[in-house]
Amino acid sequence: MSFDIHPDDMEAIALGGAFLGTGGGGDPYIGKVMARAAMDRAGRPVRVADPTEVPDDALCVPVCMMGAPTVMVEKLPNGDEALAALSALEEYLGRKADYLVCIEAGGLNSTIPFAVASATGLPLIDGDGMGRAFPELQMVSMTMHGIAASPMCIADDKGNSSVLKTVSNLWTERLARAQTIEMGGAALVALYPMTGAQMKQSLLRNTLSLVREIGATIRSERAANRHPASALVARCGGFDLGPARVVDIERKTTGGFARGSATLTGLEENQGRTFTLSFQNEFLCLEDETGRPLALTPDLICALDADGGLPVTTEAMRFGLGLRLLALPADPQWRSAAGLDLAGPGYFGYDHPFAPVEDLRRQ
Amino acid sequence: MSFDIHPDDMEAIALGGAFLGTGGGGDPYIGKVMARAAMDRAGRPVRVADPTEVPDDALCVPVCMMGAPTVMVEKLPNGDEALAALSALEEYLGRKADYLVCIEAGGLNSTIPFAVASATGLPLIDGDGMGRAFPELQMVSMTMHGIAASPMCIADDKGNSSVLKTVSNLWTERLARAQTIEMGGAALVALYPMTGAQMKQSLLRNTLSLVREIGATIRSERAANRHPASALVARCGGFDLGPARVVDIERKTTGGFARGSATLTGLEENQGRTFTLSFQNEFLCLEDETGRPLALTPDLICALDADGGLPVTTEAMRFGLGLRLLALPADPQWRSAAGLDLAGPGYFGYDHPFAPVEDLRRQ
Repeated sequence: MSFDIHPDDMEAIALGGAFLGTGGGGDPYIGKVMARAAMDRAGRPVRVADPTEVPDDALCVPVCMMGAPTVMVEKLPNGDEALAALSALEEYLGRKADYLVCIEAGGLNSTIPFAVASATGLPLIDGDGMGRAFPELQMVSMTMHGIAASPMCIADDKGNSSVLKTVSNLWTERLARAQTIEMGGAALVALYPMTGAQMKQSLLRNTLSLVREIGATIRSERAANRHPASALVARCGGFDLGPARVVDIERKTTGGFARGSATLTGLEENQGRTFTLSFQNEFLCLEDETGRPLALTPDLICALDADGGLPVTTEAMRFGLGLRLLALPADPQWRSAAGLDLAGPGYFGYDHPFAPVEDLRRQ
Repeated sequence: MSFDIHPDDMEAIALGGAFLGTGGGGDPYIGKVMARAAMDRAGRPVRVADPTEVPDDALCVPVCMMGAPTVMVEKLPNGDEALAALSALEEYLGRKADYLVCIEAGGLNSTIPFAVASATGLPLIDGDGMGRAFPELQMVSMTMHGIAASPMCIADDKGNSSVLKTVSNLWTERLARAQTIEMGGAALVALYPMTGAQMKQSLLRNTLSLVREIGATIRSERAANRHPASALVARCGGFDLGPARVVDIERKTTGGFARGSATLTGLEENQGRTFTLSFQNEFLCLEDETGRPLALTPDLICALDADGGLPVTTEAMRFGLGLRLLALPADPQWRSAAGLDLAGPGYFGYDHPFAPVEDLRRQ
């Protein structure tokens, strides 16, 4: 089902995106403000199209921000880079895009496509390439379906841009990451240009609807003075792992990513327990005091503020912050051999073999 | 005056290029072999065109290798990358090149354009952008004449390529360098697309003739069992600084460059003296034991083997090697304020203010 998104919907989209963004995908407040401003300027809602309505020969183009979230909170896009990246890709392809696509869920990456959609008047597809956020650009369902990330365009705030043509999606990631770092740690990109048929075959569907619904749930639960954890687990499946406080955090922005880990001490029902939560832009691995994994990528590890219930991103983690941790099962595609090759614990250097969060919970 | 270059001329071109390459620009043996093979395959000579014969509206495109010479001796181009870079640029511009250009003098960068010229059948212009070699791509006479380095194409041996569009030639350097490093430390590029009119206004003229003449001089002097230093100084101006032996060398391949310095101990008339010769791909600064400069970039510091008289590149410097050092005045453009901003001692972090080698010699 297609629907329209208005400026007032952007807070829910940003919150829902940040929740499914598992710590990454950018700051939801910045995302909301950017997208609202663009929509107000354009003075029209953004149409979100059901994937089934998209013609097989339509040109569908994901646009997103690439870089370290630690950089993105200080170096905001000026709003034109995403359009510049899209235009450069259209020029290269000799064809205008018919639909825009979100590459992932995230406070920024669920909202930037709305800013571009309202500026261009293009509809946005109800779906994305991850159903969550991942740090590297080859980590999308399109890769599992043999769709090339390139030709890809990358643009910065200064007016620099480039068009990449690569032999694999991992090479797109490597060459785009090197440029993103040189561009200041964050850049806007347009990539994975695909036909409607390819989009329907590869995209995780209805994730924008889900993002909006999750955001609306967070808002309504907060309005009713309830912590949204239970309602979110009821909607998404998975587990409420309870509250814990950040007692140490080590974070480096290196190789173009925000990498690090936090030590958490359990609160309430977790009293006496200690957790380690590690991340590369996104939360990837949660272990207890014995080193036993409680949740592992590609399953989702989501952190909410223990008091206010808002999503907490990795760059906002700080000493003393109380978190409520949730672990959700990833889309079945991510749990396949191909999905685990792309974004399983082994790719990120963890020794744990992947086990679904529901199995880890039972142990 | 235009003339033809045959496979048998490539040794002289490679040697002359390596001499004016001031330690950089790649290994002349590899350059000779690559270009000869390409010319033998094509079965035709390469026409070298006098700049004055080139129509004002012709499209002139420099092609060259970019990266650290320390990498280039181990990771040879497969021959197709330069053509791929040129083709990608032509595709971007929607127009075929009419003439090829050497960006600089060098064992590889004076010869690769011949390989591309023979494969495409295009003529090569008798001139280049430096009259020597420099490590960074904005360091060309075209920059001093306001000609943009981008659109620029970069291609690697694996089949990856990208088209850069940047706001300044320094940004072209930064984004291309980041990709070159990621591509393995060396890549082939096509850049500074310019009209015949722009080429005639900006290019240092007749440098290919000079390269060939220098190479021929080195060959004939060696054949006559004479060291070529005196004949080269007679032809190019400048000074024979005499012989010295490498007694220590420190070299790192970092940031995409071969950087380092060598300690030399004087031989014969230099007995008892000590020199420091430092480089970033190219030799940039020669100092005596008191730290007084003897020759400074952008003037040329050329090293020949003390015995055989062949040019010595920075990556070939090794403990025990006897050198014969020559210092030549740079083209007047390089000694202007704009030239010194681009490639003077200050840009490379040396404290010495620039002084022409003839003044340093008099002190």
